[in-house]
Amino acid sequence: MSKSETDAPPTVGGDGTCSYYKNSYYQRRSANVVKERIDEEIAKKLDFKSLPIASNTFRLADLGCSVGPNTFLHVQNLLEAIKHKYEMQFHTSQIPEFQVFFNDQPMNDFNTLFNNLPQERQYFAAGVPGSFYDRLFPESFLHFVYCSISLHWLSKLPDLVLDKNSPAWNGGRIHYTNAPNEVVKAYASQFAMDMENFLKARSKELVPGGMMVIISQGIPNGMLYSELQNGFMFECMSLSLMDMVKERIVSEAQVDSFNLPFYAASPEEMKEIVERNGCFNIEKMELNDPAAWLKGRINVPEWVVHVRAAMEESFSKHFGGEVTDELFDRLTKKLTEFSDKLELKYREKTLLLVVLRRK
Amino acid sequence: MSKSETDAPPTVGGDGTCSYYKNSYYQRRSANVVKERIDEEIAKKLDFKSLPIASNTFRLADLGCSVGPNTFLHVQNLLEAIKHKYEMQFHTSQIPEFQVFFNDQPMNDFNTLFNNLPQERQYFAAGVPGSFYDRLFPESFLHFVYCSISLHWLSKLPDLVLDKNSPAWNGGRIHYTNAPNEVVKAYASQFAMDMENFLKARSKELVPGGMMVIISQGIPNGMLYSELQNGFMFECMSLSLMDMVKERIVSEAQVDSFNLPFYAASPEEMKEIVERNGCFNIEKMELNDPAAWLKGRINVPEWVVHVRAAMEESFSKHFGGEVTDELFDRLTKKLTEFSDKLELKYREKTLLLVVLRRK
Repeated sequence: MSKSETDAPPTVGGDGTCSYYKNSYYQRRSANVVKERIDEEIAKKLDFKSLPIASNTFRLADLGCSVGPNTFLHVQNLLEAIKHKYEMQFHTSQIPEFQVFFNDQPMNDFNTLFNNLPQERQYFAAGVPGSFYDRLFPESFLHFVYCSISLHWLSKLPDLVLDKNSPAWNGGRIHYTNAPNEVVKAYASQFAMDMENFLKARSKELVPGGMMVIISQGIPNGMLYSELQNGFMFECMSLSLMDMVKERIVSEAQVDSFNLPFYAASPEEMKEIVERNGCFNIEKMELNDPAAWLKGRINVPEWVVHVRAAMEESFSKHFGGEVTDELFDRLTKKLTEFSDKLELKYREKTLLLVVLRRK
Repeated sequence: MSKSETDAPPTVGGDGTCSYYKNSYYQRRSANVVKERIDEEIAKKLDFKSLPIASNTFRLADLGCSVGPNTFLHVQNLLEAIKHKYEMQFHTSQIPEFQVFFNDQPMNDFNTLFNNLPQERQYFAAGVPGSFYDRLFPESFLHFVYCSISLHWLSKLPDLVLDKNSPAWNGGRIHYTNAPNEVVKAYASQFAMDMENFLKARSKELVPGGMMVIISQGIPNGMLYSELQNGFMFECMSLSLMDMVKERIVSEAQVDSFNLPFYAASPEEMKEIVERNGCFNIEKMELNDPAAWLKGRINVPEWVVHVRAAMEESFSKHFGGEVTDELFDRLTKKLTEFSDKLELKYREKTLLLVVLRRK
């Protein structure tokens, strides 16, 4: 319906060695952590008896689906939980037909997504290109929305962080980690605005009683992003880039004009935004451990490969491929060098799970 | 729901010089020829008063949409005619929301399609990867189906034409043009089977009263394909390939094992298949002139560029890129050499327009 924006940077397309398709099992495991919680919520809160299901078809959308394969696994898990609930409620195995909509930005690699659709799937599949900060579907069309590891990507950078005359100017850093309070505020208000648009669009698209599950990068109430492992990584990215400025590999202006549009909200913030929207009941709002594998000492090179597969495009678009290669090499070295410090940083409750139900 | 088949060869992807995106205005003009007839049918036969429209959303699918831009123009034209009819019937400009589904095979270049979606479109867009000879949508989901210049591509080659021991073996030719009657019959029965599957799937997906417009390569009742300009082109393709066999550029076995899965039905044949299915009323079934520009002498090189953009993939998959280049060069030369003969061939009523309404 309207021009799509450049929200999340697209992940690395195709299914080659460096692709997101091959390097997204961290993301998968993060989402798996909360699988049981989601299943529980579906079993408890999805009520088919009050859900308007036209033509016997249940419609689900994965917003920010990327290229797979995670999206297929999550969709499969969700459908199983949904079917199970249906069978429980009606004591029948005569379940509705399912239609699944895979959404991401138009520049997402939908060709890879479509060519990897499970052949034996039990649902009708469609791809929906567009920004999820806008309307994507007709009114009262969807019964279930899933949005995993995507909503921490802002629709755009807050203007002020690029304005040299603003107190929110963020020169010499690529993120609000360790930045002045004004920068953090500029990011936070952009997130709030995006989230409001997201909820407004979804409130139109979901039927009454329809459910929405959001999994997002989060942060405990009152904590600073610099206290987190992720924050330390962003700091090391900034430091690596500033080293490259000193060595004249990139210009200072290039670094000043680059910022990652990434924001991790606290449950408190999220709750306030949802309540202000007013169309949804909050069924669950909790922080989780991102993944069981994070219990041990972090494997820096492996971690960086995953971060890169998800974020590379933002960097290479701004700095070009060579600088990006160099940056991620330096990042790996820096994180390895400071790995003792990294280990002391907080990493536990950083995965925000939100379960909403359309009033 | 099931493994997709290799129906129509995908058109040349991307939007480069040789792409279908840039070389499909013949196809567009062919479809434009029948635009007025379709508008008339919509005005006369689409009856919103008896059409079940849930949630105030009208759903349209373009099956075999390719990569654009034609699909966007056709969809726009159809929506205008549909809106016009709605306004006429209800004397209101409060029209429903529109949702448009662009379908093609999974190997179609959906990335190009999605990146060229009109930004100011007045509809929600989605892509649906899969063979239209199978189910693509839930039951009673669609109100309008459009399938343009696609259904003459068979879902697969008839097995018998590749079987040396069969009387329908088609060695030395790449099409049923000038072939023994058994070959024509094998093609015809594959077409009938495909069309039956197509109608069966659509009869489930369309709501009662829903309309379907098919534009396809056709042929007047009782005419042979060798009498047509297109047939002459296929013959020249076969001859060019056999020349290349003599010059040992390709092997005879390679040519024998290649056949274009392309079938043009007569109105009589089509009518019989639709009636056998029994779920649709035939609102219109007529042959049209493919395009006004064909009145003058044919511009062979321009024609071949268009044929190539639509068919190249079939050839290059089988013969490789170099042989395909050589083949199309030779085809241009041969058609130019025999252009007097080409001009005598039939080209008028070769575009079949079928308008159906779900009972």
